[in-house]
Amino acid sequence: MNLEIAHLRGLYLAGELSPADLVKQLDADIGDQDPRNIWIHRLSLDEMMIYANQLANKNPADLPLYGIPFAIKDNIDLAGIPTTAGCAEYAYTPEKSAFVVQQLIDAGAIPVGKTNLDQFATGLVGTRSPYGACQNSFDTAYISGGSSSGSAVSVASGMASFSLGTDTAGSGRVPAAFNNLVGLKPSCGLLSTSGLVPACRTLDCVSIFALTAKDAETVLASAQGFDEEDAYSRKALPAKAKLKPTFTFGVPKPDQLAFFDDLETPGLFQDAIAQLKALGGKAFEIDFEPFLATARLLYEGPWVAERYAAIQAFFEANAEAIFPVTRQIIGGAVKFSAADTYRAMYKLKAMQRKCAGVWDDVDFIVTPTAGTIYKIDEVNADPVRCNSNLGYYTNFMNLLDLSAVAIPTGFQKNGLPFGITVCAPAFSDVQLLDLANQVQQNTGKTLGATQLPFTQH
Amino acid sequence: MNLEIAHLRGLYLAGELSPADLVKQLDADIGDQDPRNIWIHRLSLDEMMIYANQLANKNPADLPLYGIPFAIKDNIDLAGIPTTAGCAEYAYTPEKSAFVVQQLIDAGAIPVGKTNLDQFATGLVGTRSPYGACQNSFDTAYISGGSSSGSAVSVASGMASFSLGTDTAGSGRVPAAFNNLVGLKPSCGLLSTSGLVPACRTLDCVSIFALTAKDAETVLASAQGFDEEDAYSRKALPAKAKLKPTFTFGVPKPDQLAFFDDLETPGLFQDAIAQLKALGGKAFEIDFEPFLATARLLYEGPWVAERYAAIQAFFEANAEAIFPVTRQIIGGAVKFSAADTYRAMYKLKAMQRKCAGVWDDVDFIVTPTAGTIYKIDEVNADPVRCNSNLGYYTNFMNLLDLSAVAIPTGFQKNGLPFGITVCAPAFSDVQLLDLANQVQQNTGKTLGATQLPFTQH
Repeated sequence: MNLEIAHLRGLYLAGELSPADLVKQLDADIGDQDPRNIWIHRLSLDEMMIYANQLANKNPADLPLYGIPFAIKDNIDLAGIPTTAGCAEYAYTPEKSAFVVQQLIDAGAIPVGKTNLDQFATGLVGTRSPYGACQNSFDTAYISGGSSSGSAVSVASGMASFSLGTDTAGSGRVPAAFNNLVGLKPSCGLLSTSGLVPACRTLDCVSIFALTAKDAETVLASAQGFDEEDAYSRKALPAKAKLKPTFTFGVPKPDQLAFFDDLETPGLFQDAIAQLKALGGKAFEIDFEPFLATARLLYEGPWVAERYAAIQAFFEANAEAIFPVTRQIIGGAVKFSAADTYRAMYKLKAMQRKCAGVWDDVDFIVTPTAGTIYKIDEVNADPVRCNSNLGYYTNFMNLLDLSAVAIPTGFQKNGLPFGITVCAPAFSDVQLLDLANQVQQNTGKTLGATQLPFTQH
Repeated sequence: MNLEIAHLRGLYLAGELSPADLVKQLDADIGDQDPRNIWIHRLSLDEMMIYANQLANKNPADLPLYGIPFAIKDNIDLAGIPTTAGCAEYAYTPEKSAFVVQQLIDAGAIPVGKTNLDQFATGLVGTRSPYGACQNSFDTAYISGGSSSGSAVSVASGMASFSLGTDTAGSGRVPAAFNNLVGLKPSCGLLSTSGLVPACRTLDCVSIFALTAKDAETVLASAQGFDEEDAYSRKALPAKAKLKPTFTFGVPKPDQLAFFDDLETPGLFQDAIAQLKALGGKAFEIDFEPFLATARLLYEGPWVAERYAAIQAFFEANAEAIFPVTRQIIGGAVKFSAADTYRAMYKLKAMQRKCAGVWDDVDFIVTPTAGTIYKIDEVNADPVRCNSNLGYYTNFMNLLDLSAVAIPTGFQKNGLPFGITVCAPAFSDVQLLDLANQVQQNTGKTLGATQLPFTQH
């Protein structure tokens, strides 16, 4: 079944599909098995039907997401369903849905389930879960990327039209790249984080995985909204103009690109740059070092203490319940003092100043979303280094208050997808999605994991 | 000698005074004694003449601060003169002046000396200095207020036309109130902090003491300016319109005002409110609790670790050289962890949201600058509590990114001055000074410590 939003909407508006029909077929298609470890709690047919039935008296024309199935990362609340954050011992059952989930349900969307994740959203790999390593939608030997692993694989595998992830350090972009999806990391504060298990509250973003940039834009329009209860919520600035016919983009100097001995990705990245040029883009080499220095601050600095602060009482009482590598990482927070924290903030402020200059010269920055991809076994053998490599192009984004979109642009010879990330200052979301849409139109809209049997319904 | 800027400027433009004449008379007037402990390093006549001579070939019409003498708090660099921050063992001699000092010198101003302060700018009292407690310009038994103690008393005593202080928690406002001066705490980042010994780098402001609001505005115009080297520097927003003929101001609910058993200040505050009403202001009671909660965050929270971070190497090697109460306060920083710091930031973010709502209802908020004043002996007997009380109305200001002006509005029966502080969101500086000017015009321009023998020249 083609779950692209525009496609389903056409069927609904034409009266050729009902939400109940959709839900029944989806339930049957997904089936009882979960070999890729996508779900922590998939909704039963009955549970999904509750939402489908709520649409019975509604006009699809009134609801932009009428009958659209979506998956929810299991660190975001869905009323009545446990939120585990990837840790069963931590779980609680919320009475109400997260602000952003409720916005989507109010727009007509139907939740399919809560998805697997790197525990407490700490990781970029998708293997750090007691619910099992989430497997790549193209090749089960490979990682899905994380931390929003199940959310990405559910969409790529045709089990949902879109999904919510979270993206603090890259969790909404790396899984998009590894599963051939559009991944929108919205401007900080544009989507409420009320009802989210925090990772780093000062940086957390709810993110969107979609099959197309147009779908992501449709979801964004319903998901965003100022939330009085979330102190980090921000009112959207007026949308920027759509993409100019000619635009400029920055590319890191060659010696600032890192591919971690991956032989194919350098060429795939050059191909992607060529695609942007073909769309009217003019490339400029930029000094990427201040961005990399910012990324290192997140990885090596005190921000991990936010993860600790978020679960401190649980951590102190139940350390043994936490996934070992996650426990090691979050537990490392105790070595940072308040003075360390302020010193890191001063460095960040200086980096923000340095990085801001680049926007005088370019409209976007373009990098690989990730410089390589790993097999699950490789990550298990060297979990911290592999994870760190995957954040090379992602960790600076929220510290610099940028918006970003991960865009699929090609495939390796082994069939695994490759993608780039375009970023720009906060509130460039729609403009970035416009660029992503043009790239997708140009490359023929490769969506999700099209070679899977599932998508051949 | 009347050192008001407008007055001196008139003499210079008329050719009736030269910078050399001014410097010589000022040097003689100030004399060799310093009974109030104003100066840490007063410039010699020769040192001042260097600056006066630099103006010899200049046209006063070209330089807005031509020949205007000013004092500099001794945590701000003046080239070639030691910066002590109130601690001789910490001192260093900078090769270049602080950005803001250089801006003023470039505008024609002449430095008179480096002034006493609460050591490392930690305090609101003016007594925490190994150079001696700075005495109030009206009554030597009373505190000057701090931490910018000497900067305020030098202007109030007729030794400088204006002075630079710093204001992290209230250090630019409390001494203004206690010495009958206008005290401008500019918008954060409007004046560069390059060349400043940091207190809390995320909050530090350079502040201005002046005899009139007009003078403060003149100084501000020359002092402000974006500094590429200061990551916290901000470009000024376009100036807001001048004060409206009618305006609204918020006043804390009666039970949210604190006067610490002071019998006269409640009445003086009511008088000040009456003055604002007479100028066209309409008063509204506001809920001040979120502002007070923010103030408590600064006093009780991890921001003290910024003070520790600023001098950590010195502190660890030379703890015994630090003024005892200052050592106790700054040393208290080590108990705060990174997680504590982030938790405090989340609280602050929530308070910022709560407080922001008030600006939908009022143009300004008006409070006493301080609820009471203490004798030096009282502070020595109970240094932490007295200091804390003096920050009741000041500690929230920079955490909430507000601009503020302390305005003299009356006198106690014992002759000590009383004043209010008006505040508004960042970049309201000029509008606030306009209000201060109207208050001063209305009350007959009580300037400095007019009863001192010195001012009768």
